[in-house]
Amino acid sequence: MGRPTNPSFDVAHLGHVEIYTDRFEESLDFFTRIYGLSLSHRDARSAWLRAWDDYEFHSLKLTRHHTTGFGHVAYRAASPEALMRRVAAIEAAGYPVHGWVEDDPGHGRAFRFEDPFGHVFELYYDTRWYRPEGAMRPALKNTASAFTGAAPRRLDHVNLLAGDVAEFRRFMETCLGSRVTELIQLDNGRIGGCWFTVNNKGYDLACTEEHGGGRGRLHHVTYATDQREDILRAADIFLQNGVHIETGPHKHAIQGTFFLYVWEPAGNRVELANAGARLILAPDWEPVVWTEAERRKGQAWGLKTIETFHTHGTPPVAKG
Amino acid sequence: MGRPTNPSFDVAHLGHVEIYTDRFEESLDFFTRIYGLSLSHRDARSAWLRAWDDYEFHSLKLTRHHTTGFGHVAYRAASPEALMRRVAAIEAAGYPVHGWVEDDPGHGRAFRFEDPFGHVFELYYDTRWYRPEGAMRPALKNTASAFTGAAPRRLDHVNLLAGDVAEFRRFMETCLGSRVTELIQLDNGRIGGCWFTVNNKGYDLACTEEHGGGRGRLHHVTYATDQREDILRAADIFLQNGVHIETGPHKHAIQGTFFLYVWEPAGNRVELANAGARLILAPDWEPVVWTEAERRKGQAWGLKTIETFHTHGTPPVAKG
Amino acid sequence: MGRPTNPSFDVAHLGHVEIYTDRFEESLDFFTRIYGLSLSHRDARSAWLRAWDDYEFHSLKLTRHHTTGFGHVAYRAASPEALMRRVAAIEAAGYPVHGWVEDDPGHGRAFRFEDPFGHVFELYYDTRWYRPEGAMRPALKNTASAFTGAAPRRLDHVNLLAGDVAEFRRFMETCLGSRVTELIQLDNGRIGGCWFTVNNKGYDLACTEEHGGGRGRLHHVTYATDQREDILRAADIFLQNGVHIETGPHKHAIQGTFFLYVWEPAGNRVELANAGARLILAPDWEPVVWTEAERRKGQAWGLKTIETFHTHGTPPVAKG
Amino acid sequence: MGRPTNPSFDVAHLGHVEIYTDRFEESLDFFTRIYGLSLSHRDARSAWLRAWDDYEFHSLKLTRHHTTGFGHVAYRAASPEALMRRVAAIEAAGYPVHGWVEDDPGHGRAFRFEDPFGHVFELYYDTRWYRPEGAMRPALKNTASAFTGAAPRRLDHVNLLAGDVAEFRRFMETCLGSRVTELIQLDNGRIGGCWFTVNNKGYDLACTEEHGGGRGRLHHVTYATDQREDILRAADIFLQNGVHIETGPHKHAIQGTFFLYVWEPAGNRVELANAGARLILAPDWEPVVWTEAERRKGQAWGLKTIETFHTHGTPPVAKG
Repeated sequence: MGRPTNPSFDVAHLGHVEIYTDRFEESLDFFTRIYGLSLSHRDARSAWLRAWDDYEFHSLKLTRHHTTGFGHVAYRAASPEALMRRVAAIEAAGYPVHGWVEDDPGHGRAFRFEDPFGHVFELYYDTRWYRPEGAMRPALKNTASAFTGAAPRRLDHVNLLAGDVAEFRRFMETCLGSRVTELIQLDNGRIGGCWFTVNNKGYDLACTEEHGGGRGRLHHVTYATDQREDILRAADIFLQNGVHIETGPHKHAIQGTFFLYVWEPAGNRVELANAGARLILAPDWEPVVWTEAERRKGQAWGLKTIETFHTHGTPPVAKG
Repeated sequence: MGRPTNPSFDVAHLGHVEIYTDRFEESLDFFTRIYGLSLSHRDARSAWLRAWDDYEFHSLKLTRHHTTGFGHVAYRAASPEALMRRVAAIEAAGYPVHGWVEDDPGHGRAFRFEDPFGHVFELYYDTRWYRPEGAMRPALKNTASAFTGAAPRRLDHVNLLAGDVAEFRRFMETCLGSRVTELIQLDNGRIGGCWFTVNNKGYDLACTEEHGGGRGRLHHVTYATDQREDILRAADIFLQNGVHIETGPHKHAIQGTFFLYVWEPAGNRVELANAGARLILAPDWEPVVWTEAERRKGQAWGLKTIETFHTHGTPPVAKG
Repeated sequence: MGRPTNPSFDVAHLGHVEIYTDRFEESLDFFTRIYGLSLSHRDARSAWLRAWDDYEFHSLKLTRHHTTGFGHVAYRAASPEALMRRVAAIEAAGYPVHGWVEDDPGHGRAFRFEDPFGHVFELYYDTRWYRPEGAMRPALKNTASAFTGAAPRRLDHVNLLAGDVAEFRRFMETCLGSRVTELIQLDNGRIGGCWFTVNNKGYDLACTEEHGGGRGRLHHVTYATDQREDILRAADIFLQNGVHIETGPHKHAIQGTFFLYVWEPAGNRVELANAGARLILAPDWEPVVWTEAERRKGQAWGLKTIETFHTHGTPPVAKG
Repeated sequence: MGRPTNPSFDVAHLGHVEIYTDRFEESLDFFTRIYGLSLSHRDARSAWLRAWDDYEFHSLKLTRHHTTGFGHVAYRAASPEALMRRVAAIEAAGYPVHGWVEDDPGHGRAFRFEDPFGHVFELYYDTRWYRPEGAMRPALKNTASAFTGAAPRRLDHVNLLAGDVAEFRRFMETCLGSRVTELIQLDNGRIGGCWFTVNNKGYDLACTEEHGGGRGRLHHVTYATDQREDILRAADIFLQNGVHIETGPHKHAIQGTFFLYVWEPAGNRVELANAGARLILAPDWEPVVWTEAERRKGQAWGLKTIETFHTHGTPPVAKG
């Protein structure tokens, strides 16, 4: 009943995402006051943010830049040995390698490398657990910090744009040992989108086809909420605070995720999502393949995918 | 920042639980009409049941017996090779071994063994995927069968009783490579309860101390719901159908699970639970240790643990 | 502080709606098996249906007809005396009067009259309380019948189409003593839509402008759910059962109602809605006036109103 | 099918409640920072508070006092004429009358009177609508002020203690024209509790029997939430902020309300409640009568009523 996809188990989970903003203070205000992340640290260039139950020092790094867009994505390895196995595999595969970096307050040394479409990846094992103090101490000792009441509980996934999703898939399988849980098979033979995971989550990274001619671009970053109601309530908070709601709340056909997409003040797309109790537990899960005809039905409950969802990525692509 | 607990990754997930009933037809009616499982198959002795998004043929086997209680619990291995590695480890450990069984319609050959407290375990890789037909075909191809509207989405965990939880812990670590995510440290030096997982779920099996002098007993079986609201709605359905609601809905301090416990007609305890977006992602997660003093505070929102929760297991222990 | 609108208090609440179907058995199957109403009675021509907490014998009458569309709407008066006061007012106003009818098994004698756009209204006081028996007896004696788990708890409102909403407003104020809670003021000076109530609900009847040239047409009938989650769950049930989901779930800007619109098999539009804890308590509530510019923003969270919402009513208007 | 209870319709709704605190700053911090009310005004003695969709200037007046407990409760009349009709009825009935007061910034002149158990009541028509400015302006013009994300949407009800509930019932029917929707009939012939409403809400005031020998005491004040999920989330916020959770979340058998009770820092009991879509629409609704035997079953899902619920009122009764 399906061939094993044999995930490597070397990579434990998505660790953090760095995004760029050309409106740093406004973006930071959005993420802390409206979206509901907590600030662990900031310096002149960046802010390190986390959701209330992210166990690490940060899950989002917000960095000043002359554009919006994607800085890097980082995964945490399952052990020091697993990290070295992955590094060897990455080096052997011939993808661009930046080497080891050790300058981030959020974790120990990390190995930097790049996909064929200009997205920087990091892999690390040594990390900095968030240590709550004062009002940040949780009432329940099995949570990472005080319950804030905000919608995001933990980082969920990132969605990147790539000119050739099939090529990106090879990169993910080779470098991270990710397995593919769902994909869109276009009529022209190309893969329109691909959903990857290194663990039991339905996905921790999605890649969809770049239509705007850009390179190394971000589609969106997503945090998970405990309940769908958290997302409905967040919609009212976004509305009240003048945040641009792009689409949702609704339910994705792919992965079955309840979703809401907004644009933070600088223009990066940010999602809140809830997968319910869905997990990918089968070790021999076969990728679910969606055809173009199936995708034309829209989202699960019939919502047509909004046009900007196909065109808007960050940074914007210069026209002319 | 914590030593790696090095889960073996050989075991993919909890597969199914078999429970005994001395009121077979009433229990079956409860599980299908009220609790919300679907019947895959039945013969003169047993019924094979599953939740709408369990991918296998069954996750609950309900078996006629002269008592209530626990038949066996089964885990699915990550691969054929992983299964053989586990079998070798179990045989080497000296726990009672029943050998291979091949007579269940729900899966291929399974290796049977036993913990020191009389609970039978099975480990298998070859399985039978549920193949939905007719009205059971799901509208969304990434779900295992038609959405029924019932609360249970998938099997979540089982809770067993053991006379020595520390000894049971050694069994689980040795045989399944499970890791401990939370535990209760009693003032007398014993472990009062221990929560285990083989993957990213907070737990797939819990073991609490047997206080009634029984052997091989069941505390409860639990299915996961997508939302907490599913549990509130289920409470009204249980109320309307005269089901004994033992305690809840409320939120556990340990694991933070929103819960509801009822007794099926024969007396076995059954739970519905929702963990929100909580997952154990850290590869070096240290067990959260709860003291007796902390447990005396009751559940998360202050509900005192009901007395029967400490005394009621199945089968009941004969008195005198 | 606003002038009192002085509702008459003579009319207690919306009682039931009759809709026509040219696919009687399919429509009945939809309303009972999928939408979640219970059948109180049926004869060769009609079916009398109710939600689990509607206290009367029926809140929806489904009637065989050569078309889809609207049969009549009925309100229950606050007392026998109040009924006669209303009848006197209606007769004095000169609207078309059909007189008293006494042939419905769901209530006692009712006074029939008509709005200027061909919709038949009834007003009655003597009614038939639903008397639950057997499995329909509720576990909680303060509810009308057994909790079924279905989304609709009680009838909420009906939406009619009229060629001149301002004229329809005069009819409602004159005949029922309804007050207007919200309305759409078009740039051309016309009223685009008007929301009415006889009690503390935000609305029990809405009237929007007829754009298709039809007469006496129905826009939709709506039942209230206890929670928004009931609507999300219903969306999955509709999806699984192949029901046409027209738009939603989303939140209306007007009235703030969380909504979902589907078409029953014959084509009549049916809604599920949840207003949260919103009530109109102020005795001097001034109608909230929405401009065209405000309406162009779409629904509360930005969803653009779907085109069919402006064009589809029942029965369909013949073209040519 | 039941005799009409003929509510007078003279009284529109519960307007506000005044409670006393001997820890003013702590109580105010609780109500604004944790419970989620907004401050409209404060002076040296009192604070005027409201929920985000309360249309009036305040729904809770928090007043410094040497004890905790109940200040007064106020209802808004349906019109100036209705107010005068009620005043005439109250004066004719011989209950203690304090006369007209005009010194509150939250409303115009109010008529003060007293029940036989020492609770002060006010009746007023002229009021002060809350006028939101700046960040308090709502995104949706049909709501009273900006959505804050806090659980309370509007004031719901107050629960008073009285030595003779039957006598209290006569007071409510005579003075306010309230109707009784549910009551507890004790085996000893007394009424144990009685739920009153002046409109379509299931209740706006409850009275339960005073067991502590006190006079003019408060049992609790309650705000309504939009969804049950708002209450579950609030429970986590209370837990995180060290608020004493007395009982819940659970569902009342009487009125079917989903509830959570906490004690504010000075000791007054405060509730959050959600009634779903339940309304009392029938003009001839007969009081639902609960026997002692029925009440011994506990709350709807079986929770035993906590002992302090029967003994704790404010102010505490001196012992000795």
